[in-house]
Amino acid sequence: MRMITLDEVVLHLQENDCFKILTHSYPDGDTLGCGFSLAYALRKLGKKANVAINGALPSKFTYLAEHYEEQEFTPQYIVSVDVAAMTLLGDSVMQGVDKIDLCIDHHPTNTIVADNIYVDSTAAAASEIIFQIVEQLGVEMDSDIAAGIYTGVSTDTGCFCYTNTTERTHRIAAQVMPYCDWREINYTNFVIKTRAKIRMERMIYDSMEFYSGGQCAIVYTTLAMQQALGAGDDEMEGLASIPRQVEGVKMGITMREKEGGVFKISVRTNDGINASEFCQKFGGGGHPTAAGCSITGDLAAVKRQLIDAAEEYL
Amino acid sequence: MRMITLDEVVLHLQENDCFKILTHSYPDGDTLGCGFSLAYALRKLGKKANVAINGALPSKFTYLAEHYEEQEFTPQYIVSVDVAAMTLLGDSVMQGVDKIDLCIDHHPTNTIVADNIYVDSTAAAASEIIFQIVEQLGVEMDSDIAAGIYTGVSTDTGCFCYTNTTERTHRIAAQVMPYCDWREINYTNFVIKTRAKIRMERMIYDSMEFYSGGQCAIVYTTLAMQQALGAGDDEMEGLASIPRQVEGVKMGITMREKEGGVFKISVRTNDGINASEFCQKFGGGGHPTAAGCSITGDLAAVKRQLIDAAEEYL
Repeated sequence: MRMITLDEVVLHLQENDCFKILTHSYPDGDTLGCGFSLAYALRKLGKKANVAINGALPSKFTYLAEHYEEQEFTPQYIVSVDVAAMTLLGDSVMQGVDKIDLCIDHHPTNTIVADNIYVDSTAAAASEIIFQIVEQLGVEMDSDIAAGIYTGVSTDTGCFCYTNTTERTHRIAAQVMPYCDWREINYTNFVIKTRAKIRMERMIYDSMEFYSGGQCAIVYTTLAMQQALGAGDDEMEGLASIPRQVEGVKMGITMREKEGGVFKISVRTNDGINASEFCQKFGGGGHPTAAGCSITGDLAAVKRQLIDAAEEYL
Repeated sequence: MRMITLDEVVLHLQENDCFKILTHSYPDGDTLGCGFSLAYALRKLGKKANVAINGALPSKFTYLAEHYEEQEFTPQYIVSVDVAAMTLLGDSVMQGVDKIDLCIDHHPTNTIVADNIYVDSTAAAASEIIFQIVEQLGVEMDSDIAAGIYTGVSTDTGCFCYTNTTERTHRIAAQVMPYCDWREINYTNFVIKTRAKIRMERMIYDSMEFYSGGQCAIVYTTLAMQQALGAGDDEMEGLASIPRQVEGVKMGITMREKEGGVFKISVRTNDGINASEFCQKFGGGGHPTAAGCSITGDLAAVKRQLIDAAEEYL
């Protein structure tokens, strides 16, 4: 385990070949953006590189793989991108992997076990790091690489709205926009809602409860609700941002029931309240204003646990 | 009436004094951002400058006037900012104004009658032009000027999401961010919702109807609805973007009842459908994907007119 510099990251990538790039479970725009951009860039250098995804590529992100085909080779160098913890690496991506050679991430809570680690927690998105790597590798920007980087920086910042956005985020957006169809990417990721999603949002608003004098808002979705509305996983994206939007709310908690009696908990806070610290109480983690954890139990019990913890924390 | 260059705009501002800066009715973040930024900049040059607003400054934008106090002087030079048409200048801002000396705008449909006109329709927000002017005037950036410019560029692009966003928009954001509390500005303009607003949004979803095989979505609010929910004008902001978000919708129409039996119509389209052209049929105008008009009549009749026109247009 060695913390390395960006120059060393670039050197490692230049000196190796046959890359397997690991993305995190429940893949989002940033981990996928990193994975595909890095793979496309390495391929442009004549190297072999594949992206490993836990499960299927979410349908809204298929545009990232437009010019991607799985390559045949035995992986020799394993890179994880935007993965904060080993538990976020699904079994399927870890098949045939005995160790991670290089971890590239931006989560301050990163606990990945790897030979070489590069974590830049000032990056709003891990894709910002990939942008720098692509530049330093001397790879010419193209529509595929740009689409991945734009997807990563825009989705991880809520389209440049969240407090993690930086000047660098905007400058990178400006640099990749000429190469990719960012309008279509924004439309897909930030504008369009299916009718099922709209119904789901309304149900979320119906489930909203307030605690701690309105400082904490909690909402939930169950598998039964999801089924009743015909909402797929795509419709469940972005719901986590809803409770924090309400005036006066400092901590917004979203509980989403998954298979096996597990609730995936997303916590979003306004500046000053540490979501990551809160989620660590439940074995999770993340960023100061956006974090998550998983809790097993029935709806009422899990909700009670979260409310008690929130009331104590606030 | 003379179209002038940006250099000439700067020269006119340098050579004159006692500015009255006119903003448009139902003031938004861009016209107000322009107005205050330009006034602050001119004052830093030792000149007198006031911002004229039709009605009260909307409460969500009071931060723009934090260090602003009305100055006493007789206006000698009248500048309109972000105003597309004479009808958008309210009676109160036009008091004592017999002609406009300079029009600074970014609407391609601009029809302002002024001695000198500068329209840059490649600017996503008129505030982008003000940024250039501030730079060319040699005025040092500060928190007040930056807050106005950030407010203008972010609100006119839906926080860098709408299709009118450009590389320039992002670069300007990166340049003004270090000077102002953009996190607070984003929170105010894009994140926070009052509970009344949430109730209003749900009512909007309830009113949504689809036409032209789902390509047109139309929603409405009435004064009675607004009153029943205790929703003020602030709560009514942003509703126009809702119908276009639905999958398959190419034209989203929002009807908002105002006093005197007038409906303010907002039309938002996805690329390819011209909202401005559509609104011109009703004496309005705007941008290709975001335009507006006013129609007098009762709810059912106005809605019918709009649906018929939309079905013919699509």
